[in-house]
Amino acid sequence: MAAPVALIQGASRGLGLEFCRHILKNKPLSSVIATCRNPDGAAELHGLAGQHSGRVTVLRLDVDQEGDVRAAGERVKSNFGRLDLIINAAAMLHPSGKGETSLRDVSAQGIISTLTTNTVGPLVMAKYFAPLLLKGGGGFGQQPSEKTKQHSGIIVNITAKVGSIGDNGLGGWYSYRMSKAALNMATRNLSIELGRSRPKVVCVSLHPGTVNTDLSRPYHKNVPKEKLFSVEHSVNCLMNIINALNMEKTGKAYNWDGSELPW
Amino acid sequence: MAAPVALIQGASRGLGLEFCRHILKNKPLSSVIATCRNPDGAAELHGLAGQHSGRVTVLRLDVDQEGDVRAAGERVKSNFGRLDLIINAAAMLHPSGKGETSLRDVSAQGIISTLTTNTVGPLVMAKYFAPLLLKGGGGFGQQPSEKTKQHSGIIVNITAKVGSIGDNGLGGWYSYRMSKAALNMATRNLSIELGRSRPKVVCVSLHPGTVNTDLSRPYHKNVPKEKLFSVEHSVNCLMNIINALNMEKTGKAYNWDGSELPW
Repeated sequence: MAAPVALIQGASRGLGLEFCRHILKNKPLSSVIATCRNPDGAAELHGLAGQHSGRVTVLRLDVDQEGDVRAAGERVKSNFGRLDLIINAAAMLHPSGKGETSLRDVSAQGIISTLTTNTVGPLVMAKYFAPLLLKGGGGFGQQPSEKTKQHSGIIVNITAKVGSIGDNGLGGWYSYRMSKAALNMATRNLSIELGRSRPKVVCVSLHPGTVNTDLSRPYHKNVPKEKLFSVEHSVNCLMNIINALNMEKTGKAYNWDGSELPW
Repeated sequence: MAAPVALIQGASRGLGLEFCRHILKNKPLSSVIATCRNPDGAAELHGLAGQHSGRVTVLRLDVDQEGDVRAAGERVKSNFGRLDLIINAAAMLHPSGKGETSLRDVSAQGIISTLTTNTVGPLVMAKYFAPLLLKGGGGFGQQPSEKTKQHSGIIVNITAKVGSIGDNGLGGWYSYRMSKAALNMATRNLSIELGRSRPKVVCVSLHPGTVNTDLSRPYHKNVPKEKLFSVEHSVNCLMNIINALNMEKTGKAYNWDGSELPW
């Protein structure tokens, strides 16, 4: 079997960077394509690439620009010809850095920017990279013995529990919540389209917990210490889920502990 | 009690126009504020206004422009000072007029345009009109006798069954489905914020069925005749639901027959 290839979108910091680190360490033969908006500013990522010589390809990719995604797709196609896993990790809470606490804070431009990065970006990624996932070797997840039930690739969209409509009891954070609810619909739709094809692609939304990253930083003081995960812990949990994925689990949203999230 | 005031957004045709007609006919003392992008082209709406002299205010409002919504809000505030009902009816399937059948048809610009009109628009409407709904007289819906459980106003977002993530078994129509899923999150969030206030505003998403309008026209040939509703039938069904709304029913999505839709 060919060595697995994973693409991590939003890889310069936070969860995305840790996914790169985890895969490089735990899948010794794999290649990692790490995309970020500004590779020049991604010192940690370049450091990681230096430690794993020849295994990391850093690509400039701003998911807000469809042209960037298309160009990255062409580059990956010619360099690798296939993909086994995509993780869409880049996200923002709101352009201001703070979620709306009430309608007063809502602005059309704030919602549209948030939707563009968190929702439109991952779907446009799927548009240009699904053909490569359909050519993948199924190097991530758990393959059943029956050939017709096997998958060639996996799409993981990082969602959030606050993007669950049914679970929403607190309100607020309009832009972020709406972007993740719409992303969950994208996941569901992708699972249907890419579950009909042959080979098939597993598509899931995963909630990483509340993680110690820049996105959640303004709220850390409100989070009980044991509920604020390190990126290492969160990515460990999520990779456990990913390593057990198969077509029976496609089209759903899962919590970091593997439990299913309501829509 | 003061005469009820309803604002119908997207009132030049289809469901929006029929909501105006229905309310003018069935609520004899009510005033209707009918908004549309291009009043000059809204001959039917002007005809209706002529038949109900003094009861209809036609306002230019493009929900894609936050400045338009703000200006309309100020105008309604100074002319009426309050509102009892808002129905957000304007929507598009996709800028091309056809929903995406597969990822190949997806474009960032197509999704963003659809989200802007179908999702961002109704939320920005809520931002500028919620203060007027909080001053409403509760002229629509069913008021319980207990004062603390009464509502001053109602927000209705017209959603679609295909915007239900849990109900999605067919896929396709990425932009439209995602826009309505995110709109349902907005409804839910609004119901929480405006359910905490005193007075309170009821917020629901309503699915009108598959209705004989321009939006669904390309698909009419696929719809069994008995399932393709006239706008009159659909609005009759939806007004039956609206007339029975109260705070116990807030924060949910309902089908045209009153049954609850899954998220």
